[in-house]
Amino acid sequence: MNPTPLLDTIDLPQDLRRLQKSQLPQLADELRAYLLESVSKTGGHFASNLGAVELTVALHYVYQTPQDHLVWDVGHQSYPHKILTGRKGKMATMRQFGGLAGFPKRSESEYDVFGVGHSSTSIGAALGMAVADKLQHRNNRSVAIIGDGAMTAGQAFEALNNAGDMDVDLLVILNDNEMSISPNVGALPKYLARNPLHDVKGLVKSIKQKSEKVLGMVPGALDVAQRVENKIKGLIEESTTSETLSLFDNFGFTYSGPVDGHDVIQLVDVLQDMRNRKGPQLLHIITKKGQGYKLAENDPVTFHAVSAFDPAQGLYSSGANASNPTYTQIFSQWIIDQAAADKKLLAITPAMREGSGLVEFARRYPERYFDVGIAEQHAVTFAAGLACEQMKPVVAIYSTFLQRAYDQLIHDVALQNLPVLFAIDRGGIVGADGPTHAGVYDLSYLRCVPNLVIAVPSDEHECRLLLSSCYQLNQPAAVRYPRGAGTGVPAGTNLATVAIGKGVVRRQGQRIALIAFGSMVSAAMCVADAIDATVADMRFVKPLDTELLLHLAAEHDYLVTVEENSRIGGAGSAVLEVLAQHNLVKPVLTLGIPDIVTEHGDSAQLLDQMGLSAAKIQQHILDWVV
Amino acid sequence: MNPTPLLDTIDLPQDLRRLQKSQLPQLADELRAYLLESVSKTGGHFASNLGAVELTVALHYVYQTPQDHLVWDVGHQSYPHKILTGRKGKMATMRQFGGLAGFPKRSESEYDVFGVGHSSTSIGAALGMAVADKLQHRNNRSVAIIGDGAMTAGQAFEALNNAGDMDVDLLVILNDNEMSISPNVGALPKYLARNPLHDVKGLVKSIKQKSEKVLGMVPGALDVAQRVENKIKGLIEESTTSETLSLFDNFGFTYSGPVDGHDVIQLVDVLQDMRNRKGPQLLHIITKKGQGYKLAENDPVTFHAVSAFDPAQGLYSSGANASNPTYTQIFSQWIIDQAAADKKLLAITPAMREGSGLVEFARRYPERYFDVGIAEQHAVTFAAGLACEQMKPVVAIYSTFLQRAYDQLIHDVALQNLPVLFAIDRGGIVGADGPTHAGVYDLSYLRCVPNLVIAVPSDEHECRLLLSSCYQLNQPAAVRYPRGAGTGVPAGTNLATVAIGKGVVRRQGQRIALIAFGSMVSAAMCVADAIDATVADMRFVKPLDTELLLHLAAEHDYLVTVEENSRIGGAGSAVLEVLAQHNLVKPVLTLGIPDIVTEHGDSAQLLDQMGLSAAKIQQHILDWVV
Repeated sequence: MNPTPLLDTIDLPQDLRRLQKSQLPQLADELRAYLLESVSKTGGHFASNLGAVELTVALHYVYQTPQDHLVWDVGHQSYPHKILTGRKGKMATMRQFGGLAGFPKRSESEYDVFGVGHSSTSIGAALGMAVADKLQHRNNRSVAIIGDGAMTAGQAFEALNNAGDMDVDLLVILNDNEMSISPNVGALPKYLARNPLHDVKGLVKSIKQKSEKVLGMVPGALDVAQRVENKIKGLIEESTTSETLSLFDNFGFTYSGPVDGHDVIQLVDVLQDMRNRKGPQLLHIITKKGQGYKLAENDPVTFHAVSAFDPAQGLYSSGANASNPTYTQIFSQWIIDQAAADKKLLAITPAMREGSGLVEFARRYPERYFDVGIAEQHAVTFAAGLACEQMKPVVAIYSTFLQRAYDQLIHDVALQNLPVLFAIDRGGIVGADGPTHAGVYDLSYLRCVPNLVIAVPSDEHECRLLLSSCYQLNQPAAVRYPRGAGTGVPAGTNLATVAIGKGVVRRQGQRIALIAFGSMVSAAMCVADAIDATVADMRFVKPLDTELLLHLAAEHDYLVTVEENSRIGGAGSAVLEVLAQHNLVKPVLTLGIPDIVTEHGDSAQLLDQMGLSAAKIQQHILDWVV
Repeated sequence: MNPTPLLDTIDLPQDLRRLQKSQLPQLADELRAYLLESVSKTGGHFASNLGAVELTVALHYVYQTPQDHLVWDVGHQSYPHKILTGRKGKMATMRQFGGLAGFPKRSESEYDVFGVGHSSTSIGAALGMAVADKLQHRNNRSVAIIGDGAMTAGQAFEALNNAGDMDVDLLVILNDNEMSISPNVGALPKYLARNPLHDVKGLVKSIKQKSEKVLGMVPGALDVAQRVENKIKGLIEESTTSETLSLFDNFGFTYSGPVDGHDVIQLVDVLQDMRNRKGPQLLHIITKKGQGYKLAENDPVTFHAVSAFDPAQGLYSSGANASNPTYTQIFSQWIIDQAAADKKLLAITPAMREGSGLVEFARRYPERYFDVGIAEQHAVTFAAGLACEQMKPVVAIYSTFLQRAYDQLIHDVALQNLPVLFAIDRGGIVGADGPTHAGVYDLSYLRCVPNLVIAVPSDEHECRLLLSSCYQLNQPAAVRYPRGAGTGVPAGTNLATVAIGKGVVRRQGQRIALIAFGSMVSAAMCVADAIDATVADMRFVKPLDTELLLHLAAEHDYLVTVEENSRIGGAGSAVLEVLAQHNLVKPVLTLGIPDIVTEHGDSAQLLDQMGLSAAKIQQHILDWVV
């Protein structure tokens, strides 16, 4: 561990605010070193945090946190903030069960004023806080820190449009690193990059060199410092009036910048000015994702989020990992194969090329690949438009992010019965990312949507099979698979299909029938072996295989449903509904995610805690049957 | 009926395209007269349609519909389009059961290329069509027609950001009338209005006068026409280069305009130019909502959507209507009274001041009233931010539009357990607006959300009672009430509360217990009187009154649930879940909205068709019990 003498003196921001401004560069260096050490041991989000070190130091130095509100967008960049706000000693527990959350979380610290995980909420939340403070005659300040990637989401614009028309003191810091997780796409990032001042480092360096010349002629450090500060302020004023960056001014914000986001002294000067300004302010800072760790600077996509690694060596190749392929990889191969067989297939991702397994597809079929930016709503409506004109769009999306396109799924796709396939990744518990990313509501919110087919593969082979089957449909369909590795069943290479709405009996037992969905089939098989129960892999949540269900009900005394989704309104409820509709009065135990805000941590551990490990399922059944 | 000799010759756009350009002003006048006649008889959206007459004529004159795609945003302005595309003779059936839909609908006409009802989808859908055509080497053109109100929604910006970065031919027509349903709010509309060219009518008039002077000196009509056209093109070019309207250029669009949207000849000239342009184009036109009918021009808010009226007299005062107050009115009075009692109460609406009953609140408490624009996502996150700082926000929103803020409801409000009250209007069947506006999914998609209380009032008094009760909670809550008039029970004037999660038995009967939710309680009472059944008004869908439910199950042979929500995953499923959890094996009949895309028409008729009139419920029960 490198020595961090300054950082060692800091537990809370009030300690930081006792330092001299001139000590801040050293503190930033120590903080970066500490971050590298801790994330290399625990894994976690990395490159964004490296890029936000100086900004975080400067913000807590200038703003009176926690009375002043720092609202971090997405939260991928909040580790330095956590280190400086009383949680340095807990960094080793990052993203582990019972440990620190990987995102700001209100219940974790009073400094985490707004919980987050999804992007583009910060401006609206900070605006709410600013308005509340104003109405209550409090003098607290609100700051939203948002990346240029998150700025492409519509919600950010809705908030700009609203805030820019209000008489409220609000600072939005646009942290521009030209990246979201993947490189940014769309007109807005290009617009930002077109700004001739975008190479701010060169500019600031030149200003400083000029100031240093002045230093040579004039004695008196204070005088010099003042001149440098004035120069910088002048620089800001100058660019404020620049015609080239009027976009945010058009929204009623006063634009300032760009400023070098790795020059902590300059940031402090600028923020001190900002803190006293009236009305909606936008400060544009330029940072480098991965700043200060060469390997991350050179490959910020890979270093966006990492597992534990050796700082001297970098990341191990994921190819060296001998575990089963992930469902994402199964999807990744399937869509390439399906695309080869059908040139009408198009792939759409809302800024999740890597996470959704579309890197290879994008390479092979660039003209059929559409990264629309962090824009889930648009992704789905765009797909609907494509489907109107005889294309076959596949929207690759995480379960939790599909929540953001729920209206578009209903209004644009389902009501018009358009053939859009949703490849829903991260269905169920997601582990370390925690509650904001949990995909445990989708079966509930999708079931009530008319015209929609919902499939839930139980292993890699089923995943490919159900993707192929749903793709063939001339109507909306969703294939929902979990995060992480499969069960080891080879996926195969063909594009075979199965009948829609038909399940299969995987094991014939007695008295008890386990009606299992998706990821829970394998646990159900373990349980069934132990208690000689029947297991049905239902394959589809909608349409549900009524015939199979009635058959199982007739042949068994007890029915147990198991799913990795909320017990409320999910697949288990579908079973109850069908039985009720057929006047079948039968004891049914419905197992699923309880009605709580889930935690972060190891997925297997979380599932066990919620009663969905094989052992817990078995125990629950035995308790119930007796 | 005024004579419409030109319009009489037109059944389809191909007939329109046979006219001389010089005949188009007369056609537009006839079309406007026809529209006034037909809407005054049937009711429907009105002011927006009056404003879009010339644009519609010009679009179908220039574009080769239906091969070229006209994508109307929201669809409030699509009646002239319907009249010109083979549906003139059906205008008398507008919004009636089995008749024309009030919005574009793919199943109704090949000219309705994208179904709609919610705002801000047109750019994304048109982009999808344009991309699909390009990939298939078709030369069809795609045009999105979007209002300035709809432009404030984030989804529109997501689509701009995506389209502006694509090499695709797409025209977005910004139909700027400075209105959504209410006057527009936010920075963007102000930005548009700041444009010094915004008073385009004066400008165009001056250009024309100059052209007429030229006409006096030069013989030859063709020559003159050419000069006028060039002048107009020059005007467009000129404003294209204007620094003041760079916002859309920043998004990669080529901006043109503004153009007088009521000058059909000029529109044709401009569109002919537009149709040949490459890349993303934005044409800004200025129109007047209600154009050509003085009463609507002067009061476009009231005339946005109307019942049948006498064109010579205008609308009847709604005060003359002797029916029961609407639930919207109950909410409207409650929020004023609650605001008087608690100064922390704030009201938020996404551009639905009139529809949500906030006109009087806005007048009395302007500093506590927030119209955030058509921005449901932001509305909810903004509310979450307010709640973080001890305010008590009430989000007034239609059920169908809450779909658009589903992620924010989960991620920003529920997971953080913040006290935001959702006053959900238009829950259930909405009548003439049809499937895009049906609020029949909310109980299903809300039930699975942790920390959320869901209340469903059964009459006016209950509505006020449940609003007061849920407002007092220190957690998220939703009160969901139907469109239209209540049952006639006086709402009262106090702010009394009831126990959360407790239902009440309204009628004690035998053998059969009707477990009724919200709007279905009154129908259940009718049925119960006829068959001597018990009726419980459950008041809350979540938490469900388990004690009452188990009691009812113990005392009766049959349970029947009734709700105005999808039968899938709704309140009936909640009952099934609780019974299963308590090992209570009992016949349950679950009645609700079937799993279909609902129709538009009279609400009572629709409910009867779906088996939810008292008569149908009774029949269903009797069939089932036997």
